[in-house]
Amino acid sequence: MKFYDSVGPNPKLVRMFAAEKGYPLPDTEKVDIVKGENRQEPYLLKNPAGQLPALTLDDGRTIAETTAICEWMEEQQPEPPLIGASAADRAETRMWTRRVEWLVVQPLTAGFRSGMGVKMFQDRMRLFPESADALIASAGDGLAWLNEQINGRETIVPGRFTLADIALYAFLEFGAQVGQPLDSANANIAAWFERTGARPSAQA
Amino acid sequence: MKFYDSVGPNPKLVRMFAAEKGYPLPDTEKVDIVKGENRQEPYLLKNPAGQLPALTLDDGRTIAETTAICEWMEEQQPEPPLIGASAADRAETRMWTRRVEWLVVQPLTAGFRSGMGVKMFQDRMRLFPESADALIASAGDGLAWLNEQINGRETIVPGRFTLADIALYAFLEFGAQVGQPLDSANANIAAWFERTGARPSAQA
Repeated sequence: MKFYDSVGPNPKLVRMFAAEKGYPLPDTEKVDIVKGENRQEPYLLKNPAGQLPALTLDDGRTIAETTAICEWMEEQQPEPPLIGASAADRAETRMWTRRVEWLVVQPLTAGFRSGMGVKMFQDRMRLFPESADALIASAGDGLAWLNEQINGRETIVPGRFTLADIALYAFLEFGAQVGQPLDSANANIAAWFERTGARPSAQA
Repeated sequence: MKFYDSVGPNPKLVRMFAAEKGYPLPDTEKVDIVKGENRQEPYLLKNPAGQLPALTLDDGRTIAETTAICEWMEEQQPEPPLIGASAADRAETRMWTRRVEWLVVQPLTAGFRSGMGVKMFQDRMRLFPESADALIASAGDGLAWLNEQINGRETIVPGRFTLADIALYAFLEFGAQVGQPLDSANANIAAWFERTGARPSAQA
């Protein structure tokens, strides 16, 4: 098995998930995404989508996409449950994780690539520079909505620290590094971010 | 249990998944998304994200988000496996489903809402009308990439009909209805679309 790692929020998400679980990631190979190694062979033969992270399994298949890798880890080592210990708990975590991804992660990332990151990404994919500010604002809309949703609770999914927290944390940390700091009006999210950042896994 | 249904590709995806599985969806309530019933109470009390479909479980929790609902159904009734019969198979399906969603479904949907659908959506969420054409083109980029990836195979995940096929089918069918017909240069996807559309579940 091999874990393909790099800088950036997606690999961080998976490392943080592994750290919370105490799951030992296998041999790790670092891929230089700034230089674009991920968009060339040999990496493209492993993950034709050209993104990080990825995990090559014992059977030779390579699994990319953060949530797919985390789900696989949860199945290998169910404790502590970070997706869920029952079908209903897992469904609830997947729902909140997908909301975090579509309402915050997607526009935050697209806003970064089309804005501050345009030079790195312009030769890699189609961008939307005319909408960079609106995309960033859209991520802010998603966060304001989440801020209301978690009012009175400690975690994104009620009562449990899950993949949804980890996904949001990795991308809010990244956002703060690339000109998308959290709006302090989102007091619930700000407190949640501080609590989550105090977990040892946040250093992963 | 109750299933909240409406017009549109997301509910279609879940109905098609249920039909492939032979899983009987529970009592169904239709929500009129054209009139915006989904953005008002009482529906918002069930799904505060205001989207369809959703499934209220026996324990009172409501699960929204297509893939979360499909994963829950797969756990209730594993046969026939549409996500996978092993952890590695499930991981592979989740990877391809997420690629379909991020590379095709997201830009196709955003392009529709910000373009042809702007009147329906302008009071519901932040839009990107200045990028509508580029978003649609981005979905086309994703499809062209998928077209290469599936060269020589019958399904999105190699060797198995899965949730990834269902997700792509529901949104390409929708795209064709809203001014985003499939580019016939994508011959592999065109043949795949015809095969998939011939399955009885495509009428769900």
